[in-house]
Amino acid sequence: MKKAIFYHAGCPVCKHAENDLIDAINNDLYEVETVHLVEKPDRIAEAQRSGVTSVPALVFGPNAPLHINFGASMADVRKLAKG
Amino acid sequence: MKKAIFYHAGCPVCKHAENDLIDAINNDLYEVETVHLVEKPDRIAEAQRSGVTSVPALVFGPNAPLHINFGASMADVRKLAKG
Repeated sequence: MKKAIFYHAGCPVCKHAENDLIDAINNDLYEVETVHLVEKPDRIAEAQRSGVTSVPALVFGPNAPLHINFGASMADVRKLAKG
Repeated sequence: MKKAIFYHAGCPVCKHAENDLIDAINNDLYEVETVHLVEKPDRIAEAQRSGVTSVPALVFGPNAPLHINFGASMADVRKLAKG
């Protein structure tokens, strides 16, 4: 079972990507973990180590983030998380 | 069977997205059609009608393109297609 991580911040752009894309990827071969970074700010550093600079982003492996459209920068996410 | 279309221009950013993402989506529920816009310039207008402004992009339905990272603008794609 391969694994991908979808990082998001609950924004409309993130929701749109999640609805279509994550539903399509979750299947017999792949498991997608969805991480809401505003609710789980302790995962922000991990996302940034994977190369994530904005959300929504999908990470299949180290240093290979796929940034999908543009919802919010990681700086914005950090501000929201402190909210 | 649901369908998604992956538009690309053969660039390195496109290839990276294709390797991870399209392999993950092609499954029992989804079929992904891959369209190389430089080789098939007659599909460029169709991609733009779906809202695609850059490649690589993944389209699940009308007006809901997911732009993945940034490889090339559609203006660049048109120039490449003219060779």
